[in-house]
Amino acid sequence: MSVTAAKGFTAAGIAAGIKENGNPDLALVVNNGPRRAAAGVFTSNRVKAAPVLWSEQVIKSGQVSAVVLNSGGANACTGPKGFQDTHATAEKAAEVLGRGAIEVAVCSTGLIGVLLPMDKLLPGVETAAAQLSEHGGEKAAIAIKTTDTVHKTSVVSKDGWTVGGMAKGAGMLAPGLATMLVVLTTDADLDSETLDRALRAATKVTFDRVDSDGCMSTNDTVLLLASGASGITPEYAEFADAVRQVCADLGRQLIGDAEGASKDIKVEVVNAASEEDAVEVGRSIARNNLLKCAIHGEDPNWGRVLSAIGTTQAAFDPDQLNVAINGVWVCKNGSVGEDREKVDMRYREVHIVADLAAGTETATIWTNDLTADYVHENSAYSS
Amino acid sequence: MSVTAAKGFTAAGIAAGIKENGNPDLALVVNNGPRRAAAGVFTSNRVKAAPVLWSEQVIKSGQVSAVVLNSGGANACTGPKGFQDTHATAEKAAEVLGRGAIEVAVCSTGLIGVLLPMDKLLPGVETAAAQLSEHGGEKAAIAIKTTDTVHKTSVVSKDGWTVGGMAKGAGMLAPGLATMLVVLTTDADLDSETLDRALRAATKVTFDRVDSDGCMSTNDTVLLLASGASGITPEYAEFADAVRQVCADLGRQLIGDAEGASKDIKVEVVNAASEEDAVEVGRSIARNNLLKCAIHGEDPNWGRVLSAIGTTQAAFDPDQLNVAINGVWVCKNGSVGEDREKVDMRYREVHIVADLAAGTETATIWTNDLTADYVHENSAYSS
Repeated sequence: MSVTAAKGFTAAGIAAGIKENGNPDLALVVNNGPRRAAAGVFTSNRVKAAPVLWSEQVIKSGQVSAVVLNSGGANACTGPKGFQDTHATAEKAAEVLGRGAIEVAVCSTGLIGVLLPMDKLLPGVETAAAQLSEHGGEKAAIAIKTTDTVHKTSVVSKDGWTVGGMAKGAGMLAPGLATMLVVLTTDADLDSETLDRALRAATKVTFDRVDSDGCMSTNDTVLLLASGASGITPEYAEFADAVRQVCADLGRQLIGDAEGASKDIKVEVVNAASEEDAVEVGRSIARNNLLKCAIHGEDPNWGRVLSAIGTTQAAFDPDQLNVAINGVWVCKNGSVGEDREKVDMRYREVHIVADLAAGTETATIWTNDLTADYVHENSAYSS
Repeated sequence: MSVTAAKGFTAAGIAAGIKENGNPDLALVVNNGPRRAAAGVFTSNRVKAAPVLWSEQVIKSGQVSAVVLNSGGANACTGPKGFQDTHATAEKAAEVLGRGAIEVAVCSTGLIGVLLPMDKLLPGVETAAAQLSEHGGEKAAIAIKTTDTVHKTSVVSKDGWTVGGMAKGAGMLAPGLATMLVVLTTDADLDSETLDRALRAATKVTFDRVDSDGCMSTNDTVLLLASGASGITPEYAEFADAVRQVCADLGRQLIGDAEGASKDIKVEVVNAASEEDAVEVGRSIARNNLLKCAIHGEDPNWGRVLSAIGTTQAAFDPDQLNVAINGVWVCKNGSVGEDREKVDMRYREVHIVADLAAGTETATIWTNDLTADYVHENSAYSS
């Protein structure tokens, strides 16, 4: 049900002809109220796509009526014409929906540096508007796929209110303020400040800790829209928890579908002096190409974990580091620990625990292995 | 001639049996004076191998009589026993050479987290000492290879004096203070302070700007030994230039032999506001896995260059960035430039120019493409 699980939302997903292969490539999500509160987080990449620059302006009012999303082209590094195209897209949606353009967010994904075929996109917005439905959430989720092999949706329902969402992303997955394209909806009756607080708290520990390949996108956008249609205003803590659950579920699905991956790797840093230290160490481990290759080869190569930890500024003593891989403490006190032959790495999920022995803080980063399939997919993507 | 090109040095390379396949694995380089001045730079990884911890102490006196180098094991993350083994290696060399152990530097390379077979290494030091020769430089260079497919040597000769060297390194190539194992020798008559100054100036713009896979080693060591045997004290500028030439040549050879690589990529950042900005941007581009895959696929994917630049803190305006690939300005003013079809990427060397349009500083980082062969080699290395 994705973005239409919550009351007050309609959605559609269609093939507008942006993708040459004829697959669905345009999604529309509409908030029918009564409330139209919204919050958003965007890529921290300084090279931002036109739709990000536009949607950052839209979100400032705390009000979003509709979101137009397209796959088949990122509209990034496309200059003034690219920004005009995004603006024209919002205007078109505003026109057919009878709303103001400044309340229409736009998201794009696909190849960087190519202008969108507006002669197909604008008629597509009209077609999508005509197909808007309370059951359109799944079609919308399908229409935003690029190299995704499956569409990603998640829903958490509580006492009379719901948080649902959809996500796309399979490569260039690394955190800034946010990652990938995600639209979350809720029928809870909340203002934009509360949505913003809950969304930032959730993305910080979910999407911001998904790091498939260390490459940060120019288009990453996470939007949270509230219709108020349930008439219920939940407690903040309960609402924030529901948003975090949906974000964690979608983030886990992104890692599970990452380009070319054969392993999902949970890097858990424990006993750090600070949460920042734990995140820095977790990210350094998650980005180590040599380790990611070793995991692909089902080799519990803990030396590569230690050499990755050693490049950070985190507080630790090299002689007190401990590392477990799938439950076996292969490194103790910075040196050889239990027999590495005991480590069973046959399954897709791999769990690395790095114990810094420097405090009580913890953080978990999710990543993937590095495979020949990743190389193949990304050396052939634009051709 | 490598480390024995300069007068006053002898060297040897033998198979001590450290490597199970019987390949050469132990090298010895001896400075026969009259001077025994030396300088060194080491990995900035905080997880340092035992031989790095030892050699950092040795170099403090500015005096090195001999260097023992072994492949087949890094002696990193091996605890107190690993350090004892390094110490015993220096003691053995001191004994057979009639020098003090504190003047013997030790370098190791190979798998992390495994103790060295000292029952083979110590007799190997005796064997190597018996084979020391003024023509032993090439054998020494061969004995320090790990996954290197070729040994690397370089020599620059000036008016009566020479700087020569050898290097090993094919993976885990990324800069700290230094990278990989390198021993340079000179017969110029210079003190350790001058050697240190010239060596740091050279490594900063050579080995520190070689970034094959973003992974920093625990064992990186670059040593420069001076025998004074030429009796000539060159001008500092001329000597520093010769050291820089040898380092640049060896660095280029390391990139040319990087694990699994099919392309050598020269990332040249121009018109930066500062040299630090230029290095930060160059390194960000050089470490972008998606771009490295695209180059492997001979795809001039400049959007991935821009998204890498966007993750840095360097001074630039996204709308003024320009990118050339092999001479074609595929990105102008942050947007689509010349026709990408014009880019000829058939050759091994690829040249990327990133113009930040923010100043006059420049820096060049060398890297490689990311290939299925890299994944294969590094998922099978320890098995």
